[in-house]
Amino acid sequence: MRYKVTLAYVGTAYAGFQSQINARTIQDEIERALLTIFRKPVRIVSASRTDQGVHAYGQVFHFDAPEKDPRKLKYSLNGLLPGDIHINAVEPVSEEFHARYQVRAKTYAYLINNGERDVFYEKRAFQCHYDLDYAKMEECCELFVGTHDFGSFNTSTYEEHPDQVRTIYVCRLVRRGDRLVLLFKGSGFLRHMVRIMTGMIFEVGRGKKTVAEVREFLEHPCKSKRRYNIDPSGLYLLKIDYMNEEDYRLKKERYLYGER
Amino acid sequence: MRYKVTLAYVGTAYAGFQSQINARTIQDEIERALLTIFRKPVRIVSASRTDQGVHAYGQVFHFDAPEKDPRKLKYSLNGLLPGDIHINAVEPVSEEFHARYQVRAKTYAYLINNGERDVFYEKRAFQCHYDLDYAKMEECCELFVGTHDFGSFNTSTYEEHPDQVRTIYVCRLVRRGDRLVLLFKGSGFLRHMVRIMTGMIFEVGRGKKTVAEVREFLEHPCKSKRRYNIDPSGLYLLKIDYMNEEDYRLKKERYLYGER
Repeated sequence: MRYKVTLAYVGTAYAGFQSQINARTIQDEIERALLTIFRKPVRIVSASRTDQGVHAYGQVFHFDAPEKDPRKLKYSLNGLLPGDIHINAVEPVSEEFHARYQVRAKTYAYLINNGERDVFYEKRAFQCHYDLDYAKMEECCELFVGTHDFGSFNTSTYEEHPDQVRTIYVCRLVRRGDRLVLLFKGSGFLRHMVRIMTGMIFEVGRGKKTVAEVREFLEHPCKSKRRYNIDPSGLYLLKIDYMNEEDYRLKKERYLYGER
Repeated sequence: MRYKVTLAYVGTAYAGFQSQINARTIQDEIERALLTIFRKPVRIVSASRTDQGVHAYGQVFHFDAPEKDPRKLKYSLNGLLPGDIHINAVEPVSEEFHARYQVRAKTYAYLINNGERDVFYEKRAFQCHYDLDYAKMEECCELFVGTHDFGSFNTSTYEEHPDQVRTIYVCRLVRRGDRLVLLFKGSGFLRHMVRIMTGMIFEVGRGKKTVAEVREFLEHPCKSKRRYNIDPSGLYLLKIDYMNEEDYRLKKERYLYGER
């Protein structure tokens, strides 16, 4: 039986999602709870491996295990998990479903507090006292929308990921007084890509970089430039959208024929 | 030199505001920072002694110390204090100013999450899965508005506080989807009064008490009934309003003549 699980967590206390030796991770907490419930080791596969300190409202993972009532499974998991992780939904899915490969789009938000420090956002937003040029930041956001080679905006090499072309559907600055939210929705994001894009937009806001320089980075992908990997604690994985089964089947077929 | 200080804190890690032996409190943290700055012990007097786990957006305290630039004092304090306490303002005030006695009104908010548990409100809102009757809760709120003997709604005895008459200016239920906020603004609140009022409104919402029973409690103050002192972690001290110097002088004069 395959299950799809949607969950939220405060990333502050964890060394990221993915299992690590000698560090506390979200995956370990969940797999430990599943071991207690099913009395045998269960491996989970997540949509996104969020970094240390990154938060999630709508992370997704799947796993295979013997059949159980999904409602009861949700309650058992929440009973076993710590207070900073919460399972929102457990659904039985087709054996074909894959939490990572079937992703159609991911949505992230990055929170910046540009006013007086707010204790309730400690480790939950990036605190910035500098004056920011919001118009310039918006201009920079617009640059990213569309299909580009994001080679200048991530930390994986072309050897690891030969194809660094991704499509950004939404990149927008939302303001509510001193609170800024950078919204990113894209077909996929390479390693540290959201944080590096946020770092660029932020540096443009501070006047440390011009929009023209960012355009140059986008038009001529380059791995040798210093990238500003902004503080992870302002980052939230908001939502994972999945393609339907037919589209996923087509994607797998293209993959078999060596296309991308 | 007397200073008035406005601050915010997340109450989760503290045993309340007031100094205690063998427990970590907000007051101790602040007095330790002031000791470092002024190199001599400084006592602070707060507007409200919030309980263990209660949060604050706009707590106020005063203290006397040698003259320093208030702006620099704010920065020094924030540099020395932990991340869950933040000084919003330091102002020099008249030597007559008193953070507790000069209070004109206090505003509190109590947060209830009546939907799926939100990890970002863990220890910052009361989590409730029960169906609540919002109309009945609003009816109960209206009862409290005005001047009443709140003898049934606090845990101090008439020996400790002979006068338990207080005026509530605002008592309102604000809803945003599943998120409820109970707003309280009053001339003053007795020990545990906000939490006990909240508990009553909550029990009315759940159908465990009727509005008529609460009216009875209000009309016939009574200390013998069981009171439901709701979870402190949903409570926020929002704002302290002060009377002007003239009103405060009149209050002190009345006090000298034995009036209240």
